[in-house]
Amino acid sequence: MRHHKLALCAEHYGEWFVNSTQRAIEKYKMFTRGERVLVAVSGGKDSLALWDVLTRLGYNADGLYIGLGIQGEIAYSDQSLARIRAFQAQMAPDAALHVVDVPETYGKTIPQIARASSRGHGKPCSACGLTKRYVMNRLAAERGYAVLATGHNLDDEAAVLMQNTLHWQTGYLARQAPVLEAGDGLAKKVKPFCRFYERETAAYAMVRGIDYVYDECPHAVGNLTNFYKTLLNQLEAQSPGAKLQFYVQFLQARSEGFFDAPPSARADLRACEACGQPTTAPGRCAFCRMWDITALPAAERDEDVFDAITARAEAAEL
Amino acid sequence: MRHHKLALCAEHYGEWFVNSTQRAIEKYKMFTRGERVLVAVSGGKDSLALWDVLTRLGYNADGLYIGLGIQGEIAYSDQSLARIRAFQAQMAPDAALHVVDVPETYGKTIPQIARASSRGHGKPCSACGLTKRYVMNRLAAERGYAVLATGHNLDDEAAVLMQNTLHWQTGYLARQAPVLEAGDGLAKKVKPFCRFYERETAAYAMVRGIDYVYDECPHAVGNLTNFYKTLLNQLEAQSPGAKLQFYVQFLQARSEGFFDAPPSARADLRACEACGQPTTAPGRCAFCRMWDITALPAAERDEDVFDAITARAEAAEL
Repeated sequence: MRHHKLALCAEHYGEWFVNSTQRAIEKYKMFTRGERVLVAVSGGKDSLALWDVLTRLGYNADGLYIGLGIQGEIAYSDQSLARIRAFQAQMAPDAALHVVDVPETYGKTIPQIARASSRGHGKPCSACGLTKRYVMNRLAAERGYAVLATGHNLDDEAAVLMQNTLHWQTGYLARQAPVLEAGDGLAKKVKPFCRFYERETAAYAMVRGIDYVYDECPHAVGNLTNFYKTLLNQLEAQSPGAKLQFYVQFLQARSEGFFDAPPSARADLRACEACGQPTTAPGRCAFCRMWDITALPAAERDEDVFDAITARAEAAEL
Repeated sequence: MRHHKLALCAEHYGEWFVNSTQRAIEKYKMFTRGERVLVAVSGGKDSLALWDVLTRLGYNADGLYIGLGIQGEIAYSDQSLARIRAFQAQMAPDAALHVVDVPETYGKTIPQIARASSRGHGKPCSACGLTKRYVMNRLAAERGYAVLATGHNLDDEAAVLMQNTLHWQTGYLARQAPVLEAGDGLAKKVKPFCRFYERETAAYAMVRGIDYVYDECPHAVGNLTNFYKTLLNQLEAQSPGAKLQFYVQFLQARSEGFFDAPPSARADLRACEACGQPTTAPGRCAFCRMWDITALPAAERDEDVFDAITARAEAAEL
């Protein structure tokens, strides 16, 4: 690791990685061992590595997989769930895995609802982001999780920071942080891997033998975030450590009050008329408007949904 | 001009460019027709175009050329002065041109003082910047100019902004603006071209038939600013107008008080013990320490220096 001036063997690399995660959890006051943590797992390296590390550190960490109905040529969603199931059986057998299958629950896949909605201008990413945030928040609230943890790494955070900076999105800049506090029915959100380079989480998954989905979501290819990642990789090649410095010095300036943050990032939330989840919109929340939900759908039955998808995945011999 | 959705002939392009400069001068309250303006001219397209536009707009604009003793294979400094003289004779015959020749006045060329000093780690750019800022401020103060104008264009400003942002240099970010107000003996500094793309100032110089030095300073090749310009050019190619947006939205966020600016950017200035110019250092200013000046050198005699360099430039048949 050139920017840390460290060269480690596989065993000590894993140790360094786990200890570094623990330090980040403490430094940013993310959660304690008494709290229930819900890890959003996609089947990729970052989220599976996160679930693994939290389990090894003795945290009370369950998984949440959201089936998006994105298949493409590689049966992306089904393949993802198969990897997660295999991971859980081996690495986190005592933990729960919640599965919310979007087409089973809401009647359409993400590509279908994106086509039916005005969001996203032909790309399903905006509809997908809205749906994932909604499902995560709602499940965390309904199942009593104190904290929602995602596997965002430094490359992800730096790309978002670059995007917000290039447009001087002052509201987003004032809020971007490793921890977003709970409030008004929304779970606390944390990013324990925010200081790891993507290649570091990949190396950890490799030394732990985690079998993850290598492919990106087929809809993410060529998106703007990847463009910013390419720019930042050039910067990193020119001066190693620059990406970490960009993010960490931003957090430093932010914590010193350099940015004039709005009084409350989650001001004026009220309950959605249809589903009861917190929203800033009058009437129905953005999710219920997009999905055209007028009354609370039946509660998710994890086991039924899980069985249905498992049967489908097994039928596909994944 | 793709980002403005404008296509203009040469004549109307010049008109658009001049009128846009006038709007920037008014918008940022840079100077009025009653004030004496000193334009720092290097012999490049931006500074000569600036002197030309201010002259056409009827401002009271004189030139300042600082001879740095940077020659290289193309006799860079001598060639620059020759271009400036030719420009002045044709385009600004009623204006004064001040020439401060650094080796004549201070005894060493910029490459020589950079080698003799600890600044810059082998590159003369830091010593050069310090020297130019000093000479500009001092001449403006001694000759009674209210305002110092430089030809920095949008590409320059966006690259500096990118550099300051990537390192979250909060002090620099809070100060970066088209206008730096006068104070404590330092002249007001303005950048009337800060919203023009480099290609726009080049196009203006071309349609006006201004003969400028095409080559960059030989020491600037491969520097970090050029690296940031390359990154920003990729961004601009991906989404036209992004560079302008990055800079203008920064100014907008700044003017809305998003950045917590330090109370005064020029706090605690005192007179240098050697030269009497304003400095934040105790004792001698950074310039006098670098040049090892212990008492005020003889006042510059523009005409003598000018004659000496002119003779040298003519001898070199430039």
